[in-house]
Amino acid sequence: MKRILMGAALAVAAFAAAPVSAEEDIVLRGMGSFHVGGRIAAVSGKDVKMIQRQVGGPMTKLDPNGQYMVEQMYAQYFLPKNKKGKLPLLMWHGGGLTGVTYESTPDGREGWVNMFVRYGWDTYVSDAVERGRASFASPDVWKGEPIFLTYQDPFERFRIGDGEGSWNADPSKQKVLPGSQFPVEAYANYMKQTVPRWLSTDEAILNGYLALIDKLCPCVLLAHSQGGNFAFLAAEQRPDQIKAIVAVESATAGKIANAPKLKGIPVLMLFGDYVDQHPRWATFKRIDTEYGNAIKAAGGTVDWINLPDIGIKGNGHMLMQDKNNKQVAEVIQKWLVSKGLVD
Amino acid sequence: MKRILMGAALAVAAFAAAPVSAEEDIVLRGMGSFHVGGRIAAVSGKDVKMIQRQVGGPMTKLDPNGQYMVEQMYAQYFLPKNKKGKLPLLMWHGGGLTGVTYESTPDGREGWVNMFVRYGWDTYVSDAVERGRASFASPDVWKGEPIFLTYQDPFERFRIGDGEGSWNADPSKQKVLPGSQFPVEAYANYMKQTVPRWLSTDEAILNGYLALIDKLCPCVLLAHSQGGNFAFLAAEQRPDQIKAIVAVESATAGKIANAPKLKGIPVLMLFGDYVDQHPRWATFKRIDTEYGNAIKAAGGTVDWINLPDIGIKGNGHMLMQDKNNKQVAEVIQKWLVSKGLVD
Repeated sequence: MKRILMGAALAVAAFAAAPVSAEEDIVLRGMGSFHVGGRIAAVSGKDVKMIQRQVGGPMTKLDPNGQYMVEQMYAQYFLPKNKKGKLPLLMWHGGGLTGVTYESTPDGREGWVNMFVRYGWDTYVSDAVERGRASFASPDVWKGEPIFLTYQDPFERFRIGDGEGSWNADPSKQKVLPGSQFPVEAYANYMKQTVPRWLSTDEAILNGYLALIDKLCPCVLLAHSQGGNFAFLAAEQRPDQIKAIVAVESATAGKIANAPKLKGIPVLMLFGDYVDQHPRWATFKRIDTEYGNAIKAAGGTVDWINLPDIGIKGNGHMLMQDKNNKQVAEVIQKWLVSKGLVD
Repeated sequence: MKRILMGAALAVAAFAAAPVSAEEDIVLRGMGSFHVGGRIAAVSGKDVKMIQRQVGGPMTKLDPNGQYMVEQMYAQYFLPKNKKGKLPLLMWHGGGLTGVTYESTPDGREGWVNMFVRYGWDTYVSDAVERGRASFASPDVWKGEPIFLTYQDPFERFRIGDGEGSWNADPSKQKVLPGSQFPVEAYANYMKQTVPRWLSTDEAILNGYLALIDKLCPCVLLAHSQGGNFAFLAAEQRPDQIKAIVAVESATAGKIANAPKLKGIPVLMLFGDYVDQHPRWATFKRIDTEYGNAIKAAGGTVDWINLPDIGIKGNGHMLMQDKNNKQVAEVIQKWLVSKGLVD
């Protein structure tokens, strides 16, 4: 066990990505952040405690009773000078993750936020309720405990390694999928991006996204994994405000009975490589396909792109961080152009 | 009670800050983010569970036993084209907060990150271990529970209102400090920025900051409140890597016995208004003054600026978000220029 821990510790330290100057400047007419949504929750009947908030600081009262700000969400925006996208582009992350998904890759290359800002999109990168800078509520407010991903879980589950048993603390013994584009040498940095999640907060998360839509839209949604589920559910409630959805390995889709509500929204269902050989991902793809078919049956427009079918191979679930992430961004941008969403 | 809750709910909805285009473009030669530090922690002896990670998704195993990535921290950087600061500028937030402190103000004006990027500083805004995008560890790894700020706590404690009893859900009944520069109409948005904190993680937080220093410095630290405590403690361990410290209402300072180690580091101790009339803040100021005097006694350089003494009035503890935040930023920038840190 000690040997494994040491091996893992080495892996953590192995890759230090440096801040990068880009080849081309990013010119912004504005940048900033805000929170939206949330509600005030009341807690009562708890004991008052005295605590020291800082070492050497005074003893101060902590009264856990009272009102709390909960279930807000966070968004950061970058507004390019050379605006080309006709609408705001909202980037929604997946489960156990934050907006960091779209920032620099674990190995320090530019992420999709930079790329889409360069394409000229007013880009909004958010942290869903309970994640990252959105904060989370106390056990007095939310049922259940947060769950935490083990160090090896995404490696085996997100199509970096070849499924269960593919992880090993010794990199030379890891069964990485053949041709994988993931920067596996920086896997430790990827794991540093992960955050805990609750399983009881879907409604609060969706309400946060609806508040974001109500502030910013009409808009285009680009949503990854669990974020795709929220994007479809939100679009079912705000069909007139969503002008396109790019669903990147959506897990899962919306409520199939509501799919016809999306008939006016162009949808791109995008999947990477190795999907059919991994039952979990094949299941998500099937669910997304059924949902997309239901939109089409109602007269809507749904396009499917399986990257290997157009010659782009080696993409796992974190394809916005893969070594060919720019190539995948270009596929999405081309689709957005084809839908008339770019000047 | 119901009436109070409704009043508070109205306050939450009252102020919606819009994304702003600035008067002047921000030209960046790069922007991105990364995590540093962290360690792998092992958990064992827990039961395996089956859980549904997405509504409608497949049942999947959750095995809480294993290794976890913990105690990393997050930083986002903005590198201005027109670089003037001679060294990276690291912005460290206070307790119960994240790097959002330095982003847009609760009422949607530009924050200090934009201002210091405009001054030409390579600016790094971080989330400390356990906060925001740095993530937090499970109860299996960290002792104790996180503590949560009540909705009224910062209002009464951070010199927005006039101490205990100054909060009221009805804005017309709030006892705001006379002449306060805080955007009190957007207090709800400020509360959305707050995050839980643990009281057992100081060592992990400091280790995260040391990892950040080891990656980025020599550098200048700009630290607020509890962040000032960590800045001084970190400087005691890396005195050659820190070339200036701007301590914004530091709470508290470092270890007084180690203060002489900072004799080569110019220090600015900055405090806002209403300090002497609020014992908690008078205590912090006294502790900071004693620490600063110990640096000076060892031959170091410490400057004290009490904003009211130079005619800048009405600043509470969140002075980087106050309506005159640009005026306060200019005071800091002028000091940095005076120390030869700007080209």
